[in-house]
Amino acid sequence: MREEATAFVPGHITGFFSAHPDDDPTKAGSRGAGLTLTDGVEVTVTRATREPTILFDGERVSIEPVETVLEVLEARARVEATSTLPIGSGFGVSGATALGTALAANQVFDRQLSYNELVTIAHGAEVEAGTGLGDVVAQAHGGVPIRLEPGAPAHNSLDAIPARARVEYVSFGELSTTEIITGDTDQLSAAGASALSLVVDEPTLSSFIYASRRFAREAELLTPDVRAALEAVAAVNGQASMAMLGNTVFALGRGLSEAGYEPTVCATHPAGAMLK
Amino acid sequence: MREEATAFVPGHITGFFSAHPDDDPTKAGSRGAGLTLTDGVEVTVTRATREPTILFDGERVSIEPVETVLEVLEARARVEATSTLPIGSGFGVSGATALGTALAANQVFDRQLSYNELVTIAHGAEVEAGTGLGDVVAQAHGGVPIRLEPGAPAHNSLDAIPARARVEYVSFGELSTTEIITGDTDQLSAAGASALSLVVDEPTLSSFIYASRRFAREAELLTPDVRAALEAVAAVNGQASMAMLGNTVFALGRGLSEAGYEPTVCATHPAGAMLK
Repeated sequence: MREEATAFVPGHITGFFSAHPDDDPTKAGSRGAGLTLTDGVEVTVTRATREPTILFDGERVSIEPVETVLEVLEARARVEATSTLPIGSGFGVSGATALGTALAANQVFDRQLSYNELVTIAHGAEVEAGTGLGDVVAQAHGGVPIRLEPGAPAHNSLDAIPARARVEYVSFGELSTTEIITGDTDQLSAAGASALSLVVDEPTLSSFIYASRRFAREAELLTPDVRAALEAVAAVNGQASMAMLGNTVFALGRGLSEAGYEPTVCATHPAGAMLK
Repeated sequence: MREEATAFVPGHITGFFSAHPDDDPTKAGSRGAGLTLTDGVEVTVTRATREPTILFDGERVSIEPVETVLEVLEARARVEATSTLPIGSGFGVSGATALGTALAANQVFDRQLSYNELVTIAHGAEVEAGTGLGDVVAQAHGGVPIRLEPGAPAHNSLDAIPARARVEYVSFGELSTTEIITGDTDQLSAAGASALSLVVDEPTLSSFIYASRRFAREAELLTPDVRAALEAVAAVNGQASMAMLGNTVFALGRGLSEAGYEPTVCATHPAGAMLK
């Protein structure tokens, strides 16, 4: 039995989505599409001497889906997560931390679960906590995943846009995911369904960013900061949209820097979550 | 439209499999499990000035599934593949070249197909050529894939062993895949089904290598060179089995080098096929 294991999970920016609640958390989830990122969360799990603890960038925190994962795996663990991504800003940090914890704890505690089983545990924990609907399965896939059917691996169906890109992003602060995904999602989900059909018809990065921008407008989720940034990027003929759900703008290529912002720069991540 | 695109596709060693023929090549395939490898095939596609050409390590060759992929994509292309992997030795080189061609040609010729569609085209081409049954979908997935249900993405079901490993291999020459997978596969497929159930029960690398070795014995596929190498690795308490289908032995960790062989060394590849 190994005493320590580390996993890396890419960040995930959702461009558009429709919410699909279900009493069974392995069936609940979202349809949509997004970008997994080379910026992500690194999670190291070790055996805890006393009670389980979770540290994020060195600070003791409580992350409900991570706690659930540890309970399901019966793992009395110390979880140390580090990331350059901002929390609560639409990068799927809670999902990434939950999935990384599942992968690393499975190794340390020799739980002998399969990849899909670990993804299912992390997805279910995230859905139950109300912190996300589709990040975990996207982060398990990597690349530029299209979520055709919602839920954990036994129920979902994924495809992907076969492309890579430089990604820029600027975050203007937090936005509550729980409030939006547990509220009235009819208008949002109608916009998400129509965005998805655009991307299924033409699975390219340019149709993805177009569909994402249309979704953000139709779902009426634009914040003033985001709206200003999108207008600035459009003015220099750049490609940008809003991270769902965060007060964050992301651009393909150099849209934000050419518009005068000082974005963080990363790229799409070719692989899904992995042990290091 | 881009004039050139390059894809990398990991090699794939199948540890065990059962064959599932079907008149529809998107339903035909195999169940089983294997290792995708950091050693793989790099494929560069450019527009051809005259007729399509395929070069492998600089030599003009004919690879039927690659030609089929170019036809389906209506791509008059020059395909340049390079690899350190030996051909016809159980590394899925033909499947990797077909899948890499599909990904790169889609980009160069702006065909706007999705990842799954490109995998389906390469898988179908491989099945029709009789050169492989499960390599393409495994290579699209990456990691240590378990093929639970056969066929292209619309029909198959994959899981994975959540682990990474150093991999060593020694190849003793070619073995014809076509002859075995188009012949009487009843005994082989019964052995493959029982190996799969072992790995589904315990999705770990040690159960994978145990199930693979049992499969190789029960399916009566061991060549004299392979048998001698497996005995030598077992004598030093190493973990090895035979690549299906090739006259090749692979080991996890350092089994072959500790047994006195001079193996090629690589590792499991965390990601599936990707554009560079």
